[in-house]
Amino acid sequence: MAQSIADRRDQDFVLHEMLSVADLAKHEDFQDFNKKTVDMVITEARNLAIKEVLPTQKEGDEHGCTLNNGKVTIPECFRKPFKLFCEGEWIAMCDDPEYGGQGMPKVLSIAAGEMFTGANCAFMMYPGLTHGAGKIVEEFGSEAQKKKYLKNLYTGKWAGTMCLTEPEAGSDVGALTTTAKKNDDGTYSIAGNKIFISGGDHDLTENIIHPVLARIEGAPAGTKGISLFLVPKFKINDDGTPGESNDVVCTGLEEKMGIHGNATAALAFGSKGNCIGELIGEENKGMRAMFIMMNEARLGVGMQGFGFATTSYINSVNYAKERVQGVNLMNMFDADPKPVAIINHPDVKRQLLSMKANVDGMRTLLYYTGFLFDKAKTAATPEEKEKWEGLIELLTPVVKSYCTDRSFEVCAQGIQIYGGYGFIKEYPQEQLLRDCKITSIYEGTNGIQAMDLLGRKLGLKKGKPFMDLLGEMNKTVAAAKEIEGLEAMADILQNAINKLGEVAMYMGATAMSANVLHAFASALPFLDATGDVCMAWVELWRAVVAAPKIAKAKKKDVAFYQGQVKTAEYFLSFIIPATLGKMEAIKSNITAIMDMPDDAFAG
Amino acid sequence: MAQSIADRRDQDFVLHEMLSVADLAKHEDFQDFNKKTVDMVITEARNLAIKEVLPTQKEGDEHGCTLNNGKVTIPECFRKPFKLFCEGEWIAMCDDPEYGGQGMPKVLSIAAGEMFTGANCAFMMYPGLTHGAGKIVEEFGSEAQKKKYLKNLYTGKWAGTMCLTEPEAGSDVGALTTTAKKNDDGTYSIAGNKIFISGGDHDLTENIIHPVLARIEGAPAGTKGISLFLVPKFKINDDGTPGESNDVVCTGLEEKMGIHGNATAALAFGSKGNCIGELIGEENKGMRAMFIMMNEARLGVGMQGFGFATTSYINSVNYAKERVQGVNLMNMFDADPKPVAIINHPDVKRQLLSMKANVDGMRTLLYYTGFLFDKAKTAATPEEKEKWEGLIELLTPVVKSYCTDRSFEVCAQGIQIYGGYGFIKEYPQEQLLRDCKITSIYEGTNGIQAMDLLGRKLGLKKGKPFMDLLGEMNKTVAAAKEIEGLEAMADILQNAINKLGEVAMYMGATAMSANVLHAFASALPFLDATGDVCMAWVELWRAVVAAPKIAKAKKKDVAFYQGQVKTAEYFLSFIIPATLGKMEAIKSNITAIMDMPDDAFAG
Repeated sequence: MAQSIADRRDQDFVLHEMLSVADLAKHEDFQDFNKKTVDMVITEARNLAIKEVLPTQKEGDEHGCTLNNGKVTIPECFRKPFKLFCEGEWIAMCDDPEYGGQGMPKVLSIAAGEMFTGANCAFMMYPGLTHGAGKIVEEFGSEAQKKKYLKNLYTGKWAGTMCLTEPEAGSDVGALTTTAKKNDDGTYSIAGNKIFISGGDHDLTENIIHPVLARIEGAPAGTKGISLFLVPKFKINDDGTPGESNDVVCTGLEEKMGIHGNATAALAFGSKGNCIGELIGEENKGMRAMFIMMNEARLGVGMQGFGFATTSYINSVNYAKERVQGVNLMNMFDADPKPVAIINHPDVKRQLLSMKANVDGMRTLLYYTGFLFDKAKTAATPEEKEKWEGLIELLTPVVKSYCTDRSFEVCAQGIQIYGGYGFIKEYPQEQLLRDCKITSIYEGTNGIQAMDLLGRKLGLKKGKPFMDLLGEMNKTVAAAKEIEGLEAMADILQNAINKLGEVAMYMGATAMSANVLHAFASALPFLDATGDVCMAWVELWRAVVAAPKIAKAKKKDVAFYQGQVKTAEYFLSFIIPATLGKMEAIKSNITAIMDMPDDAFAG
Repeated sequence: MAQSIADRRDQDFVLHEMLSVADLAKHEDFQDFNKKTVDMVITEARNLAIKEVLPTQKEGDEHGCTLNNGKVTIPECFRKPFKLFCEGEWIAMCDDPEYGGQGMPKVLSIAAGEMFTGANCAFMMYPGLTHGAGKIVEEFGSEAQKKKYLKNLYTGKWAGTMCLTEPEAGSDVGALTTTAKKNDDGTYSIAGNKIFISGGDHDLTENIIHPVLARIEGAPAGTKGISLFLVPKFKINDDGTPGESNDVVCTGLEEKMGIHGNATAALAFGSKGNCIGELIGEENKGMRAMFIMMNEARLGVGMQGFGFATTSYINSVNYAKERVQGVNLMNMFDADPKPVAIINHPDVKRQLLSMKANVDGMRTLLYYTGFLFDKAKTAATPEEKEKWEGLIELLTPVVKSYCTDRSFEVCAQGIQIYGGYGFIKEYPQEQLLRDCKITSIYEGTNGIQAMDLLGRKLGLKKGKPFMDLLGEMNKTVAAAKEIEGLEAMADILQNAINKLGEVAMYMGATAMSANVLHAFASALPFLDATGDVCMAWVELWRAVVAAPKIAKAKKKDVAFYQGQVKTAEYFLSFIIPATLGKMEAIKSNITAIMDMPDDAFAG
């Protein structure tokens, strides 16, 4: 069975039939991106993903990364796709063409990203982190820094990382102890140890640029005293070429559950007293920069999780249609019943539909969130721009946490569909689950995302973004009420939106009261409920687009459009009743969790 | 941080305070098992598990099993605990002392099993499968076969396996193609290939006895023509010692996601035409024997899944109490807030409580199901015996599927509590998740369990076992209504029981109607709802036992008993509302899944 990745028909449905992304071409920023170009970009990304990236997935997992005599070796098979990524200018898809970017709409980079990360996430982290480091330089660097670093990063000549975590400073970044001491020439001497640095060392590129969080001598404790520095692996000569070593030493690689192809490094900066960095942005404002970057990175991690899920789903559908095992329940008392493909077994079909509902819904939610960046960029008024930016801020923690949690579940179902073969390394499903697990942890654990939603985003601008989100959902309810056959689903969504509004009010008020800890104990269930209702919304939106097309669709599209309506029906009538129960639970007993005595937990 | 396993205090609570297992000693079959003996057995099992088995967990995973020149090597560190298992007579805890068994109550073997599998499941599969093969001989063997095999298996001198699966016959065992040809001396020549044979080859023991499903030449197709054979790795000499090779060849070992320490073998029987087996039980009645064995094996797999969960939970609690990171939300605006242990963070506490509720609930449900065997054995009347046996039949698929699915979720949370460290092999959590995944697949996937519940067990004896189960639950409701502070929870459980009864009636009727496929599409959600209500029942039962003791408890027990009540409160008020929603969903749209066109699934 040939392996594949994302469902192209559904990608096109979201891009063109739901979001009409080609309309962006009316705006001068995106005038080159008409439908034809959009389709070409997707096709090229798909070809690259299937032909060059996907074949490295298993080999990357098996080979992994090794550290010998201070030298990190990553899977050899990554070199070719990395070269093709650079040549095809895929690293900086949406960024400024002046610095090597392609100036694409963000939504396209998400669609391409689904395919790339679904083909091999561990590989994709090298170009992905390189882009992130470049973005830091683009957003916060001086003109000189842009000139020195930016094009080299955006074109993949150099790679990048992100150096935050230390052994005693993970979720609590403010506890970090890496120091920066100002030198007479304006540079800083960096000293400290970072861990869990993805793509932290390798020889894919001639240099690696590390954005490093550190505390300048005498700066305040906590997050208020953190600055951001650019620290290259090799010092950069005056002519821009890499020179001598900058005293950044890889002291170890982590043995991990998954993403084996990515080198997760422990890095020692300045252990010989010879590590030089340059400040980027203002002193003590490093966390601000990091937060701005992190929002985009979190959307990216949601997309990574989703990439695993979409691949696992496609594999499962293909397997369930090809694998013959057992007889149809309706024929089991026949004299000599023929075995059938397992998609015919009701429980297998249920699982596939559950996977499809999750995958298709997440695709819409992720593409939509990416599209909001493009809508903000092309907004006609400041009010409109503010609205879309508010939605981005609000949806970011939801997308990161909800999509990574649901994707992990989808990957587990993807193993289950394969039965015993799902547990065997010869088949792709178990790797997808192992790789996927990291996405609920890094870029802020999902618990941190839930705190962000409740503590920062829900009350943002007096709750306007949250109300805007419910408003967008209500538009879909109104549209569905006008379409024959969707009325009952419109009522279900309407009811869920109202309940979500009530719970949000309750949670917001509780978080401001003496019961603040109780509110935060329900932060993740609240985020999950928000995500469920978002999914119900986009599923119904799909049905609103698809239902009127069924009657006049081309033959090959009939089942596709019917499937949209049926999937919405499944999600709204099968999943949302439990969501309503979860929302009731949050409101009915907010103190159940924190009242538990610590000593009652056995140890 | 020293690793540990099951919570001893809670084990004692279930054994003595909930189930009063020492009362079994009133019956002559268990007269030796008074409270002192019970406690001694648990203590000894615990010591063996912690001191000898647990230290092999990581090494077994890393070393794995290898096949070189036809010889299978398993982790060397397994030899010592296997020897201790044999010496301590732990292989056949509950079996007939005449053949080397210990004659213990079944509930004790479950409690010991929690600790052993929680310490290293991949290791435990060797003695576990050996016991299973012995049980087949005990139940179905002739006196001569018992004499030849049984003691050698129960004492671990020889090991055992279970050979069902073939490449084209997994869930559909009836499709198998291994053949048996009767020889003049009454033996059979066996020929065929089996895959996924756990503990299929190794040199822990001087011989391995393979119970093999095969079809005698001329027997009917499907499950009706399957017979069971005993096939030793080495032919057995007349003096009972192992002799020449019996033409059973290990042709490969699977590379798996987890349980690396167990050799999952592909075995070729009779490839040189020289493999001899002896029929056990009647011709063509192999599946019946297999089903009887399988019921016990399924309870065992539920316990395995649980073993991973209980270990992951204990690790998580210890980690959350020791790991200092981040400040208390209440103090975050202080001038210089001190970081705290992460158990103080509301979302961490929520996760620990969720894990605890699942783990403690599953412990009760598993021990209870084991205890039902003992109650059946010691029943005063045939009616009573029939009642307990009916409950065992009913609960077996629930325990297998529900406990393995929930345990996988607990193991995923166990990674999340550790943050980035959870993803690293240096810490135990990721292995527990990888190992746990197999439990939802083998001994019948969880989808198969759901079919068993709906298709066979729900309607058993016109539904009497199901009604008996609801009756046992209602006893707890009645008791809770009499205890101050538990009344509201009693009402919640009462409502859930009533809803479950309604859904069961609806599902039973639908499964007998033309909508049979629709019913089976909801079989797993129905099993899950049944499991949720079982958990709510045992959580409230815990509270019923604990609440009256709080006032007069010793100081060290106060938090423990309070914790029972709070955990019940959490489960009933936080989890059950979603369960009610799931039950509503099953009834409201039974056709949503099967109406989905196959072609609407992308491939």
